[in-house]
Amino acid sequence: MKLGVVILAAGLGKRMQSSLPKVLHPLAGRPLLDHVLETARGLAAEAIVIVHGHGGELVRERLADADCRWVVQHPQLGTGHAVMQALPIVNDMDRILILYGDVPLITVATLQRLLEASAETALGILTAELADPTGYGRILRDPSGRVTGIVEQRDASPAQQAITEINSGFLVAERARLETWLSQVGNDNRQGEYYLTDITALAAREGVTIATVQPSRLAEISGVNDRVQLATLERDYQQQAAERLMRAGVTLADPTRFDLRGRLHVEQDVSIDINCVIEGEVWLAEGVQIGPGCVLKDCRIGRGTQISAHSIIEGALVGAEARIGPFARLRPRTQLADRTHVGNFVELKQTQLGTGSKANHLSYLGDAEIGADVNIGAGTITCNYDGANKWQTTIERGAFIGSNSALVAPVRIGADATIGAGSVIARDAPAAELTLTRAKQATIPGWQRPKKRPTP
Amino acid sequence: MKLGVVILAAGLGKRMQSSLPKVLHPLAGRPLLDHVLETARGLAAEAIVIVHGHGGELVRERLADADCRWVVQHPQLGTGHAVMQALPIVNDMDRILILYGDVPLITVATLQRLLEASAETALGILTAELADPTGYGRILRDPSGRVTGIVEQRDASPAQQAITEINSGFLVAERARLETWLSQVGNDNRQGEYYLTDITALAAREGVTIATVQPSRLAEISGVNDRVQLATLERDYQQQAAERLMRAGVTLADPTRFDLRGRLHVEQDVSIDINCVIEGEVWLAEGVQIGPGCVLKDCRIGRGTQISAHSIIEGALVGAEARIGPFARLRPRTQLADRTHVGNFVELKQTQLGTGSKANHLSYLGDAEIGADVNIGAGTITCNYDGANKWQTTIERGAFIGSNSALVAPVRIGADATIGAGSVIARDAPAAELTLTRAKQATIPGWQRPKKRPTP
Amino acid sequence: MKLGVVILAAGLGKRMQSSLPKVLHPLAGRPLLDHVLETARGLAAEAIVIVHGHGGELVRERLADADCRWVVQHPQLGTGHAVMQALPIVNDMDRILILYGDVPLITVATLQRLLEASAETALGILTAELADPTGYGRILRDPSGRVTGIVEQRDASPAQQAITEINSGFLVAERARLETWLSQVGNDNRQGEYYLTDITALAAREGVTIATVQPSRLAEISGVNDRVQLATLERDYQQQAAERLMRAGVTLADPTRFDLRGRLHVEQDVSIDINCVIEGEVWLAEGVQIGPGCVLKDCRIGRGTQISAHSIIEGALVGAEARIGPFARLRPRTQLADRTHVGNFVELKQTQLGTGSKANHLSYLGDAEIGADVNIGAGTITCNYDGANKWQTTIERGAFIGSNSALVAPVRIGADATIGAGSVIARDAPAAELTLTRAKQATIPGWQRPKKRPTP
Repeated sequence: MKLGVVILAAGLGKRMQSSLPKVLHPLAGRPLLDHVLETARGLAAEAIVIVHGHGGELVRERLADADCRWVVQHPQLGTGHAVMQALPIVNDMDRILILYGDVPLITVATLQRLLEASAETALGILTAELADPTGYGRILRDPSGRVTGIVEQRDASPAQQAITEINSGFLVAERARLETWLSQVGNDNRQGEYYLTDITALAAREGVTIATVQPSRLAEISGVNDRVQLATLERDYQQQAAERLMRAGVTLADPTRFDLRGRLHVEQDVSIDINCVIEGEVWLAEGVQIGPGCVLKDCRIGRGTQISAHSIIEGALVGAEARIGPFARLRPRTQLADRTHVGNFVELKQTQLGTGSKANHLSYLGDAEIGADVNIGAGTITCNYDGANKWQTTIERGAFIGSNSALVAPVRIGADATIGAGSVIARDAPAAELTLTRAKQATIPGWQRPKKRPTP
Repeated sequence: MKLGVVILAAGLGKRMQSSLPKVLHPLAGRPLLDHVLETARGLAAEAIVIVHGHGGELVRERLADADCRWVVQHPQLGTGHAVMQALPIVNDMDRILILYGDVPLITVATLQRLLEASAETALGILTAELADPTGYGRILRDPSGRVTGIVEQRDASPAQQAITEINSGFLVAERARLETWLSQVGNDNRQGEYYLTDITALAAREGVTIATVQPSRLAEISGVNDRVQLATLERDYQQQAAERLMRAGVTLADPTRFDLRGRLHVEQDVSIDINCVIEGEVWLAEGVQIGPGCVLKDCRIGRGTQISAHSIIEGALVGAEARIGPFARLRPRTQLADRTHVGNFVELKQTQLGTGSKANHLSYLGDAEIGADVNIGAGTITCNYDGANKWQTTIERGAFIGSNSALVAPVRIGADATIGAGSVIARDAPAAELTLTRAKQATIPGWQRPKKRPTP
Repeated sequence: MKLGVVILAAGLGKRMQSSLPKVLHPLAGRPLLDHVLETARGLAAEAIVIVHGHGGELVRERLADADCRWVVQHPQLGTGHAVMQALPIVNDMDRILILYGDVPLITVATLQRLLEASAETALGILTAELADPTGYGRILRDPSGRVTGIVEQRDASPAQQAITEINSGFLVAERARLETWLSQVGNDNRQGEYYLTDITALAAREGVTIATVQPSRLAEISGVNDRVQLATLERDYQQQAAERLMRAGVTLADPTRFDLRGRLHVEQDVSIDINCVIEGEVWLAEGVQIGPGCVLKDCRIGRGTQISAHSIIEGALVGAEARIGPFARLRPRTQLADRTHVGNFVELKQTQLGTGSKANHLSYLGDAEIGADVNIGAGTITCNYDGANKWQTTIERGAFIGSNSALVAPVRIGADATIGAGSVIARDAPAAELTLTRAKQATIPGWQRPKKRPTP
């Protein structure tokens, strides 16, 4: 039983009011379509086909690595027509599962249940019970419970309108039968479109037993037509993510103020305060504590490290028992060893900081290799850029950099060297000595303070 | 049909526990009364009268520009009495609409419907269906649906208490009839007050057909009596604002974490991350992206510009394709040209930054005019204040300011000049040359590091 | 009637997925058990006994000051067994009230009602009406309303399962009777445990009149078994705290984005913007305004002071009419006098700032005593640490510290002294004079700018 998945992703999405194709709008930091693709891959399908239309090139470009085939639907004559475009390239499949590029939260588990329930029959559909089914196609069943068709809102009798089981649009069908049914679907409707859902009535008329399965949660079958719906699904996603993390042993100060846009790998007893944003791949080891308002992207934080409020970390490795922030900024390729301290208004870029070293105040350290037990005074700046090239600063273990110093790269500060406060160090400083630049302190006798100018 | 609007704004608001008059408490950044006034202006009224009481002078002062007349109610003997005070100065009007200074979310659309429904009759009232009507006056209707009166909670029979249609207090009446009715209202009640709502019963008794209209949303008729209710209406306002923006094509990462306190003008595909606050008048051009935790006030951001986390912008103009933040602070009268970069822990005040210029780290630039393609090194400070006066710094195009430099204004850095790191530039620096101040670097032989003092 | 309180705190809390004992997990910034202890103390009990088990030593250590006695339950054979361990050390009490270390929101008021209702009888229990009582023991009553027993979910008939009044587990009993009942409780159940709740059936069988009381809110009897429930109770706590503050006259921009982890003492007309976190003991005087994203811990802020966005204040005293932030950081033992200004990217640690003094930009002031009317220029650094010791900086009244200066402590700047921009001041500067260090400004003729290296 070879399974092919067809993802319909050609919708224009006019209500998004966007120049970006709808399926590229991000949910939890990545395109809607990417969520559907990930789910499709989880099903062990033999082939995945994406039917695109509007902005298709941009879609293909953004999902360039996607292990799937692409079909363009042009002109766009409805969902049935869209599936028809895809069928030729899945003609060696036994069954076809239809997914939607703008219905991102469908789960592998629900689809597996649908596939299993449909294993012995030619058609399986995903249905749902809605408190208010208005607008949706209702599932018709005979007294024995057998599905006999779907009736659209506009055609439903009052009795049928009272039916609360609706058609989600998700379905799996035998490929051959699907092709036959689709060839019989007409476009005699107001939009003049070929609707995929019409095949259910055809199948029922043929006496096919139609398997039905319901999703675990309604959000799974909720589509995105505008940015209000997008925000609703974003919040649903985040709530699920938060709950999953809490059950895994993460303390979230407020699950409604947590945003995961990627993957968060956690060990035990991680604690995350309000309004943190996690992006890309983030690893937090045992006992890591993240303060309020932090943004962490593609980073790895070691055991017992505390990151205080309003810190931003991207592309960095941080060791164990470190103290970061508040107001710290770690930029890509920064590596902090164990027990390092990085304090407020400090930026590190492509810099290594050795075990136990500290940069606690108002510093910029870029392209620097800093050994263990170094103290970087407040206001220290590595002058790593000469206007054309970036240069390296090396500070060996145990050095003490006096406050407000400028280290003009390339330059090396020897082990246990001391740099006097306010120095501009443009040549290497020897180990274990005091090196500085210092003009003589002078007091100017008789100097008068400036006076307030008259307002012109 | 000349329309006069009377806004009742004399309530003491004791439950606000405040020294500020209730109608001056802010909702979405401006006084409650200001919201009502704006709505009143939207109705093309010939006259707007505000009846004030407690703290009236402060109210008039804060709303000094308001195109309306003021009447003091003193002593305060109820809403009917309040309207009576206003009638003499609207005696040339045909109809009077009553609004409330502490019911801020009433909309022009609802009031227009009320005015239209009441066009042919002497009295129109705004009513609402409440799931729990306890405490409100119930609308009595005869079998034909005609309003026959209002019964207050304390006087309602069990059958009347089951009525869920309540009186909102909003009404429009023929001025002459209103005056007559008000003169008949008594104060035989526990508070000894004259209630405006009593005129409905009088009108019904006279056989007047009372038009009724219901608001689109209950929040429209919700009043503010304490700060819990104020917060509830604030959230309602913000939810509406967020939804309106999303429908206009703005992506909000979380509509419940968005605060609009002014007006936001957007082009297509603007994206705003969590917890941003918008104040005053803000323009965001196409494709602008705002990171989490930003505060934007009275500013204009150009096409494609990205503002990263925790940036604060006030009174600034930012060009296209700029990169601002994180942790950037732009203060009033700052102008950033296209493709400028302003990075972390950088403050700009009343400063122009030319096309493509960059100030990426830990700098203070105040009262500066900076040309195109300038690089401001980390830790650069414009010394714009001498203790008495502010002075100007000019940096011409293509200059490179070495890190940790202090530019003592007034001073001019010539085009393509380079300033050596750590310099204090107190005189003009010529174009295209390297200018610096630098003491000789020295290493002190035999110097001993300080030792830890014994604890006293 | 001497009252003893027994707090059951021995539960393992496996679903917390934590190495920390469950009762030590924080809610609103302090351990669950600490909330229960505080409530117990509010009851004027003669004795408080905590029954601990797993991680008991850590629990005792963290709550070292607690005025209570500790009993270990080992092995852990159920709640009835746990109470049995505690009885010997409260054998001089008349009544025993049972509380739970993982049910933190029970209130003194509810327990007082329970104690009063039970004053004349041997057993009083706290019950609750649940919309969905599934899983809880149901309260059985005879037609007169008298409690006749509790039936557990697994033993309940369909009719009993329809009962919505459930047993919360909280109870108060005569000590002697409790002891007798507990000795009769068996462990003939799936877990093989002795259940405290079984005493209710025993009491009923003996004809004891069982008093019942219900809590004001269901959250009072909600327990914490996993971090999802912990987050739910955290939010409940915060919502209550926010509402209480709003009723006391605090404006909260969004009560769902406010976190109180300690005690907040307020005067009139305090306003707190979104996402502020309050920790420890914080006092805010009349008219204080706190901007978005601020963290305040153990501090006292004077009348009319404004704290702007993203400021972090810990262990500081701030006077009246001060202006702090945005992006300001005040660390412990900082004292700001009235009308002081501390601006963006400024850190103060153990520093006094005199009346009207200003440090507006990018500065680090540590271990400094600064007089009135001092102006600290942008980029000023106190070099308070020599690598071994911290030293004091003194700046007398009226001094003007030029931008980008380094003050090498110990050092004293005299009254009305001026320090030239970019100076490194290592010796005392006399009053009323200009003192500076300044190398000569030089322009290097013929200097060539660096060229871009070829990429290797």
